[in-house]
Amino acid sequence: MLHSGAYLPATRIAYRTHGTLNADRSNAILFPTWFGGQHDANEWIIGPGHALDPSRYFIVVVNILGNGMSSSPSNTPAPTDGPRFPLVTVLDNVILQQRLLAEAFGIERLALVVGRSMGAQIAFQWGAWFPDAMAALLPFVGSARTSPHNWVFLENVKAAITSDPDWCGGDYAVQPTLAFRRMRLVFDSWGLSQAFYRQGLHLQMGFHTTADFINRPMPASNADANNVLAQAATWQAADLSANHRFQGDYAAALRTITARTIVMPSRTDLYFPPEDSEIEISHMPNAELRVIPSVWGHRAGAPGTDPADTAFIEAAISDLLAG
Amino acid sequence: MLHSGAYLPATRIAYRTHGTLNADRSNAILFPTWFGGQHDANEWIIGPGHALDPSRYFIVVVNILGNGMSSSPSNTPAPTDGPRFPLVTVLDNVILQQRLLAEAFGIERLALVVGRSMGAQIAFQWGAWFPDAMAALLPFVGSARTSPHNWVFLENVKAAITSDPDWCGGDYAVQPTLAFRRMRLVFDSWGLSQAFYRQGLHLQMGFHTTADFINRPMPASNADANNVLAQAATWQAADLSANHRFQGDYAAALRTITARTIVMPSRTDLYFPPEDSEIEISHMPNAELRVIPSVWGHRAGAPGTDPADTAFIEAAISDLLAG
Repeated sequence: MLHSGAYLPATRIAYRTHGTLNADRSNAILFPTWFGGQHDANEWIIGPGHALDPSRYFIVVVNILGNGMSSSPSNTPAPTDGPRFPLVTVLDNVILQQRLLAEAFGIERLALVVGRSMGAQIAFQWGAWFPDAMAALLPFVGSARTSPHNWVFLENVKAAITSDPDWCGGDYAVQPTLAFRRMRLVFDSWGLSQAFYRQGLHLQMGFHTTADFINRPMPASNADANNVLAQAATWQAADLSANHRFQGDYAAALRTITARTIVMPSRTDLYFPPEDSEIEISHMPNAELRVIPSVWGHRAGAPGTDPADTAFIEAAISDLLAG
Repeated sequence: MLHSGAYLPATRIAYRTHGTLNADRSNAILFPTWFGGQHDANEWIIGPGHALDPSRYFIVVVNILGNGMSSSPSNTPAPTDGPRFPLVTVLDNVILQQRLLAEAFGIERLALVVGRSMGAQIAFQWGAWFPDAMAALLPFVGSARTSPHNWVFLENVKAAITSDPDWCGGDYAVQPTLAFRRMRLVFDSWGLSQAFYRQGLHLQMGFHTTADFINRPMPASNADANNVLAQAATWQAADLSANHRFQGDYAAALRTITARTIVMPSRTDLYFPPEDSEIEISHMPNAELRVIPSVWGHRAGAPGTDPADTAFIEAAISDLLAG
């Protein structure tokens, strides 16, 4: 039984750890994945010389539900397989992650919860649901709840999938290929920024025209259309106060987050604009706003983007871990 | 033969006039339509007490090519009907409009060219192609050329149409209905703004939820899918310097615009952000930037939106007409 009320049999949470848990279990960091990502995608800021250094910290990268590694439409048996997979919430993820940390490692308190995008939504929820369970929080390019505008954007993501006749209501024999191409087009417009294109950064990747860029070959992928829809549903429902404890009182939920927090939007993010972050920190007793000065939009700091943005994020991680 | 090189037989330009042309033909104002609009849509700022007052001015509202009134896929005979309609450019529109004004009314110089959105792109092109043909220009919520980001957005608009199986490559028997619903979803996310939804203005229209808003009934419409695509193609190709005279020299084309100009973006427009307008006026010898302080995004000042924004636009029209 999930916290959201749905029943999901034999729920599985997949994770990968980096480093060694110390004797007093005080060096653990939780770093959940984001929409469309699996645990290896998180590794670009993990390693020697990075803020998330496995020689000092025990870093648990946990896969969110629906991402194809943890319980997902693609790996769950009937009757909750494929399009019959229930809505799972950010809070469902958080509660399962807390159990994982306690039962597998005996971790009761984290040095840091850090998350990107949907992972940031998970970090916010951790702070509000288990306020004593971490010293610090770093949600970047994300939000404490999905804004109405971001919700409408996600309807476009879902429509990109479901408008492909090969999607077949979710009971497809092979992955619908047009679906993923259309979804990438949605992301190419929303996930970057006007400034990114104005500066011609897409052409600096080796494309002659904007048309060449958006028509670039689709990379090989193990993505699953129903998994995408399941994660989009989790994202749309994200709201750290949408539960029996907070009853939708958004400000009260944010006030509960007492861990030292750096809220880090990207200046040009069209999903999670800094204005929403400003509202968040106005309710948080121990939070600082640091805006990534990026033109990469929602992708600021992600693998393959501007190293300066990545360094900006890593500096905040280091600041929080320094205490 | 169109300026763009395409051949379009028996080209027709439809227009409506308001007011009376004075004896020295000095009181004419040109006000082209925009993407998806026909001449009646322009009438919300035309009338007694409005800046565009027919008791003082002769206002020519001219329908752009592809809008279903002027020559369009829907009203052009074979072999250039439907999906075989050629690309027409903003400059094609401008050259035909200039001929219309000269041949039908003997107008050689306009008091003002004012345009919204794609109509603003037409106003910019007028200023660069016929710099002595107007005293003033007011392009609002538009641009002198379509930015790469805006071009990518338009790919989403086109995909909304062409992803409907009932579109049938443009040779449909009846209008594809899913196409228009999906296009509205694209506009609901891009055409408004994050701030609009954050303030809940969509709920103030009488909807209980964001889902109710985006699923509101589709109004009756005479829209034609191929006309939409034709106009989107014009929009994507918009660049006042993409012609033999300017050879792509954007700055040179903007420098040519000597008419007094107020460039008026909306602060929250996701298509035509104010940053692009700042670049435009930096090259224009006689231009002023006035940003509409609106949360209505691209729709700022349009019919049915914030009257304060409409008043802001009308004040600029009045300022320009006062000389």
